[in-house]
Amino acid sequence: MVPDEHAAADLARLRASIDNLDAALVHLLAERFRCTQEVGALKARSGMPPADPAREAYQIERLRGLAHSSGLDPAFAEKFLTLVIDEVIRNHEKIKHGSAPG
Amino acid sequence: MVPDEHAAADLARLRASIDNLDAALVHLLAERFRCTQEVGALKARSGMPPADPAREAYQIERLRGLAHSSGLDPAFAEKFLTLVIDEVIRNHEKIKHGSAPG
Repeated sequence: MVPDEHAAADLARLRASIDNLDAALVHLLAERFRCTQEVGALKARSGMPPADPAREAYQIERLRGLAHSSGLDPAFAEKFLTLVIDEVIRNHEKIKHGSAPG
Repeated sequence: MVPDEHAAADLARLRASIDNLDAALVHLLAERFRCTQEVGALKARSGMPPADPAREAYQIERLRGLAHSSGLDPAFAEKFLTLVIDEVIRNHEKIKHGSAPG
């Protein structure tokens, strides 16, 4: 059994790292959605459909590979990408139907 | 209407950025789960419960604030964090019950 004060200090140290990583993740996600907003506008302008199953299949395979090599559970990487892509497609549909802000 | 070849080139350029951002996201997520694996082991050793509602409420509020300032949809930030925390708690339960690999 670890003494309580050591456990509390270790927990605080790990949580500080987690909070830093979360801030980085949020900022990267913000930048990713900036890119996909541009993709959405481009697709709407040039008449391309919002979803692209071949691109999505490529992304899922690639992320599973990156997850494997970085020690992330590939099943989790796929769940994460699915969450992001669902949001992107919703945004693309909004742009297509003219209800996007800005 | 944008000429097709320009649209295709713009799409390829944006997708290259998205692929780079996704690689960065996967590596940050891998590092985040390394930290939470340590948290899980620490909690199991010192008898702390796997879930911590006060910590989760703090994280959600903080990420919503970071999302707002970085231009990410705060509702999406919350969905993202919920996905991650659910996975973390599942992993902590596994560690607690001794079925974690390694």
